[in-house]
Amino acid sequence: MKPQIDINCDLGESYGAFKIGNDQKVMPHITSANIACGFHGGDPVTIAQTIGLGKKLNVAIGAHPSFPDLMGFGRREMRLAPDELKNYTIYQVSVLQGFARAFGVKLQHVKPHGALYNMAAEDEKTSETIVDAVKTLDSSLIIFAPPDSALAKAAIKARIRVAHEFFADRAYNPDGSLVPRKMPNATIHDTRKVVERTIRMVTEGAVLALNGESVSLGEIQTVCVHGDNPAAVKLTEALHKGLTRAGIEVKSVGNFL
Amino acid sequence: MKPQIDINCDLGESYGAFKIGNDQKVMPHITSANIACGFHGGDPVTIAQTIGLGKKLNVAIGAHPSFPDLMGFGRREMRLAPDELKNYTIYQVSVLQGFARAFGVKLQHVKPHGALYNMAAEDEKTSETIVDAVKTLDSSLIIFAPPDSALAKAAIKARIRVAHEFFADRAYNPDGSLVPRKMPNATIHDTRKVVERTIRMVTEGAVLALNGESVSLGEIQTVCVHGDNPAAVKLTEALHKGLTRAGIEVKSVGNFL
Amino acid sequence: MKPQIDINCDLGESYGAFKIGNDQKVMPHITSANIACGFHGGDPVTIAQTIGLGKKLNVAIGAHPSFPDLMGFGRREMRLAPDELKNYTIYQVSVLQGFARAFGVKLQHVKPHGALYNMAAEDEKTSETIVDAVKTLDSSLIIFAPPDSALAKAAIKARIRVAHEFFADRAYNPDGSLVPRKMPNATIHDTRKVVERTIRMVTEGAVLALNGESVSLGEIQTVCVHGDNPAAVKLTEALHKGLTRAGIEVKSVGNFL
Amino acid sequence: MKPQIDINCDLGESYGAFKIGNDQKVMPHITSANIACGFHGGDPVTIAQTIGLGKKLNVAIGAHPSFPDLMGFGRREMRLAPDELKNYTIYQVSVLQGFARAFGVKLQHVKPHGALYNMAAEDEKTSETIVDAVKTLDSSLIIFAPPDSALAKAAIKARIRVAHEFFADRAYNPDGSLVPRKMPNATIHDTRKVVERTIRMVTEGAVLALNGESVSLGEIQTVCVHGDNPAAVKLTEALHKGLTRAGIEVKSVGNFL
Repeated sequence: MKPQIDINCDLGESYGAFKIGNDQKVMPHITSANIACGFHGGDPVTIAQTIGLGKKLNVAIGAHPSFPDLMGFGRREMRLAPDELKNYTIYQVSVLQGFARAFGVKLQHVKPHGALYNMAAEDEKTSETIVDAVKTLDSSLIIFAPPDSALAKAAIKARIRVAHEFFADRAYNPDGSLVPRKMPNATIHDTRKVVERTIRMVTEGAVLALNGESVSLGEIQTVCVHGDNPAAVKLTEALHKGLTRAGIEVKSVGNFL
Repeated sequence: MKPQIDINCDLGESYGAFKIGNDQKVMPHITSANIACGFHGGDPVTIAQTIGLGKKLNVAIGAHPSFPDLMGFGRREMRLAPDELKNYTIYQVSVLQGFARAFGVKLQHVKPHGALYNMAAEDEKTSETIVDAVKTLDSSLIIFAPPDSALAKAAIKARIRVAHEFFADRAYNPDGSLVPRKMPNATIHDTRKVVERTIRMVTEGAVLALNGESVSLGEIQTVCVHGDNPAAVKLTEALHKGLTRAGIEVKSVGNFL
Repeated sequence: MKPQIDINCDLGESYGAFKIGNDQKVMPHITSANIACGFHGGDPVTIAQTIGLGKKLNVAIGAHPSFPDLMGFGRREMRLAPDELKNYTIYQVSVLQGFARAFGVKLQHVKPHGALYNMAAEDEKTSETIVDAVKTLDSSLIIFAPPDSALAKAAIKARIRVAHEFFADRAYNPDGSLVPRKMPNATIHDTRKVVERTIRMVTEGAVLALNGESVSLGEIQTVCVHGDNPAAVKLTEALHKGLTRAGIEVKSVGNFL
Repeated sequence: MKPQIDINCDLGESYGAFKIGNDQKVMPHITSANIACGFHGGDPVTIAQTIGLGKKLNVAIGAHPSFPDLMGFGRREMRLAPDELKNYTIYQVSVLQGFARAFGVKLQHVKPHGALYNMAAEDEKTSETIVDAVKTLDSSLIIFAPPDSALAKAAIKARIRVAHEFFADRAYNPDGSLVPRKMPNATIHDTRKVVERTIRMVTEGAVLALNGESVSLGEIQTVCVHGDNPAAVKLTEALHKGLTRAGIEVKSVGNFL
């Protein structure tokens, strides 16, 4: 059997007149869309348009819940009480479930956004709270999480499916963590390199860290590409083609997990 | 068969530390709760608490969508494009559907809030847009609307069930419209009078207008009581008791429409 | 004496990660910047950066107050009570005054944004309320308004200076009103044409309406160019050069009004 | 010379229809009002009304800037970049400066709100950033801070005047820090006790900690009373009377610092 992989991207982050990303051009090359729910971006019209586009192009739909921080685009840590985080998550995932239903599609997954994703990756209480919220709404939803993270563990413990995620254009440390964005070389700009390392990741379960060591991340089900820069279109296209050419089947994770 | 009536109230309008209403004390006396969805009030924690309370007390749950105007509590007219209004409505109703599902209850109805309710009552395009959004999500939802209003007509045309609504403590004009709040005598403060006219409304389908004329409003399925004042608790209690004593069955409208 | 004219543009409308406009490239060619105050765009960091840039390039600073409608970018009519509108205006102009002071510059003008501008142009109460707010803060502020509009009249009545504004790239009706944006030919895309009609406007006080008639708009002190499209940079540059070449002095309106 | 003390309270925290506090009844008994600026509460109409009331009652006006977190009432820690925090502070203080000017009064002080206050009390970078913002706007403004806190030190270092603050109804630890609100006995509800300890604090510079030890807090210039509970009215009245009776002069801190 061919190896299989999902390509995911954050989309639908525009907010009214504020346009972010290249959704129209990125969508054809990915298989899962993480759609903003209104807390860091994603007004209702944008949500509807993004789901409509995803449906047309057969891209699976996910909710991309965030801290309530439009001014900071959800990139700033906030200290919420568990019942706040739980209900903020239910709120946002419900929105995407509703719009998905309105378009006759089913919500496939949930991926926390920005600072919430980072906190959930590391903090047990945060990740348990998110998983609890997701499970309350639909226990068949898939949670996107870094391999071996607190979020992945919390989902597994709660018997919620996890798609382990690899960041195609981000450098890794030898311990398997991401090199922080502020550091030099945190992002890989060479498309060819990004494609190569992703192929290696999918087929061998390992990636070269910044220092040249090989890091094992285990089995990966989804590859994240960042969509909010002009190069994203080319990158997602090259990645989709490169993976396919390497004999890897690119499809929505809900189809093979 | 006994005549039947539903008592509805706007609840769940608090927003974080900002507390509005007497939800805990009003809820035991009503049969349908219109719950704010976050656009004019109703943060996610409040939504969850309100639905939880409603479930416990067997009160049916409805969505209370609004213009996106927290600063103005949804009471100010806004001129939205139809695709904006449609998707803002889907967004808000989806939220309540999701929370209802999380609590294992079913959303019963949708009642637009404040300025949106008033515009929907009069404007064909506005009401058709709201009904369209509701129908897209769940065609079994009930829409609360003034008798003979544009909103009631749009719902009927779209084959969505309507609960015709009577405002228990608001004065009516001889043409069946409400006396605007700014006018003197717009609100009836005498609890006994409120109960009496509601009984008459339910049993005879008519109410005395400010000038003493009898106004026929047709058959009424739900009575609205305002919950954001200290007298609301007494009023809803008196209304529930008074109607019951008069041989009218007070129950959630979804049970008899 | 040479004829004199100011060129103004809406800038500083970005909001956190949401970037709008080409402020860096447009700023060198204009003489007055209308800076968003946070209600339709313009987070505090953006405000600071925009004023800093304006100061560096010797561009006069103005406040660009709006309805509180980030989701609709201030382009949707809202029905506010006069004390709401008055205090929303004071709030927003105060913000720009404060940042201007922080940068050691003086706020030159106030220009309402979007739907508020349109309402103020036509409605007496709205324009009087805005003028009242501005006057309360600083009676030496200049108000930007369409010639002969309700806003211009309210300012004159309150003895506040007015800069009468011409829209360089918008088509006019024979009665001097703007052709609504939804209409075909509402916007003039030919840079040369825009420059020519602006020169004519400044020197002759008249513009050709869509139907070819010459419309007198009286004396104009400022020309508005829209900055939120890619052509804005070229247009403002061409306009500045073209006006200068035609013997017209291009400078901030506060210097000659 | 008589000892002197200022009594401050957080006011103007209502937001449109969301009413918080007892401003009308508390204001007569205090000498400095910390007024919300719109980020955690305080819509523009509320700001205007609160300053108007303060002016009438001769209460000095201060800005009460917060994290941008209306849903959390500014009580949740957020991790902002220094240029974000600096400009958020300038934004909010500018608002109060503007409204003060509109009412013909001068802004007296700045007191960070909620989670921002707590962070500023402990964190050097946070407090330096706030002090920098304040100084940029008006170096004669007074900053309210806990004695010996990072905020007090940053202000002193920047040669900005500090009013050292005592929390009248909060229990202290032996090290001079506040007993966290979540702990039992964190708040002192006995009015008489609150008055007594405040008198002792002002006259002796010391307070009894929870464990009975006497804690020296140095010289205190302002006493904070919480206004968002029904007892606040009585407490502020009792405090004002009690201090006066004890021979302490109660007046706005700007008059004696």
